[in-house]
Amino acid sequence: MRDLLMNRRTIRKYSSEPVDDKMLTEILEEGCRSSTTGNMQVYSIIITCDNEKKRMLAPLHFNQKMVTEAPVVLTFCADFNRFNKWCSLRKAEPGYDNFLSFMTAAMDAIIATQTVCISAESRGLGICYIGTTIYMAHKIIEVLNLPKGVVPVTTLTLGWPAEKPEQVDRLPLEAIVHHETYTDYSDTKLEEYYREKEGRDDSKKFIAENSKETLAQVFTDVRYKKPDNIFFSNTLLQVLKDQGFMNQ
Amino acid sequence: MRDLLMNRRTIRKYSSEPVDDKMLTEILEEGCRSSTTGNMQVYSIIITCDNEKKRMLAPLHFNQKMVTEAPVVLTFCADFNRFNKWCSLRKAEPGYDNFLSFMTAAMDAIIATQTVCISAESRGLGICYIGTTIYMAHKIIEVLNLPKGVVPVTTLTLGWPAEKPEQVDRLPLEAIVHHETYTDYSDTKLEEYYREKEGRDDSKKFIAENSKETLAQVFTDVRYKKPDNIFFSNTLLQVLKDQGFMNQ
Repeated sequence: MRDLLMNRRTIRKYSSEPVDDKMLTEILEEGCRSSTTGNMQVYSIIITCDNEKKRMLAPLHFNQKMVTEAPVVLTFCADFNRFNKWCSLRKAEPGYDNFLSFMTAAMDAIIATQTVCISAESRGLGICYIGTTIYMAHKIIEVLNLPKGVVPVTTLTLGWPAEKPEQVDRLPLEAIVHHETYTDYSDTKLEEYYREKEGRDDSKKFIAENSKETLAQVFTDVRYKKPDNIFFSNTLLQVLKDQGFMNQ
Repeated sequence: MRDLLMNRRTIRKYSSEPVDDKMLTEILEEGCRSSTTGNMQVYSIIITCDNEKKRMLAPLHFNQKMVTEAPVVLTFCADFNRFNKWCSLRKAEPGYDNFLSFMTAAMDAIIATQTVCISAESRGLGICYIGTTIYMAHKIIEVLNLPKGVVPVTTLTLGWPAEKPEQVDRLPLEAIVHHETYTDYSDTKLEEYYREKEGRDDSKKFIAENSKETLAQVFTDVRYKKPDNIFFSNTLLQVLKDQGFMNQ
């Protein structure tokens, strides 16, 4: 297990070999055994294997090529629709049209997603998280025909690896973990924690390619820019309203 | 792996045996190898082992006894503080004081959490998710001394199992999974999907204990009530504002 978890890499190139249906079912079953709030299972998983559907999803994920090239695309959704409908059928008045319920459902969805990743990787499959799901949720809702009460929160592409990329870096564990209370980060500590990341050849290449002065500027000025973040924040909040999660 | 993932149970009773420091470090290392948005690792993990600190956290988790009885309590936080401080140190202007950035960081935190769960369970440890973290985030922030840019999103209790509870039910996989597009739930399908859950002895006992007519009513009228959900939604949205995530 340690070997599996410590030596993993995100896989963005897949062979043309399909993922066996039985294997996919087993992976999803394992995902659905994960912890879930009050055993409500307030999430859904949409499987996309159809090429036409993948082509419709691709631009909503900024044309990241994994979306059309992976044999399987899985969209994980916060979903109170099923639970609400069950409540109504059973003379119970659901009260889940609010932000807390969205967060509960989103967390349920992500917990299942990560179990699916580990299950898939344990079988030799490769996975990639597609973070654009929450940027373009309103459009994904249209393509996947998601009703009120359902919001896509993340997407996985899944397939047999056709690459073995270098493993990327991580911050030292002590940069992430705090004992008893949070210890805020001094400049000295930041220097220490980011030294390895900043010293890497790929980081230096990244800075040069983007004509920036520091690695941090590649994030703030190129990859995750404030105007984009603000735009997509407002879009996402509107999605939560439209899907019925902001009625407090 | 299938056996581990399919036969798991949430563990709420722990033996007094401590969790070895080296083992805990390895588990956290494995958690921190999980996928993270743009390799930013925008989360932190607070370890609580001190009994006094556990006693301070307990009421914020509605006195669920796992919080004081488990040898280890882990609070997983969405954290842009470290990243923002690094940006500022490196002549980069962070633009992460918005809702999208909170969601990104919350998802990073949950992904790491679930890997920690599986890693811990693979070593024979038992875990329990404590969902109250987002209800009482404002108070947890005080106890753990979390600065602006940091929001606790979930908590795990961790220890050696002192129980082997019956495994709880799950909905059939076809209730969760949709092919290509979302198929909304007819009454007939809901009857089929919830039949096993509603037929279980523990469900019937739950209904009787709470003097309700249906299992769904136990959720809507007792466990997850609308007025509570609204109250904690507003509290949580205020936390996001206070911690600097709603500046769009």
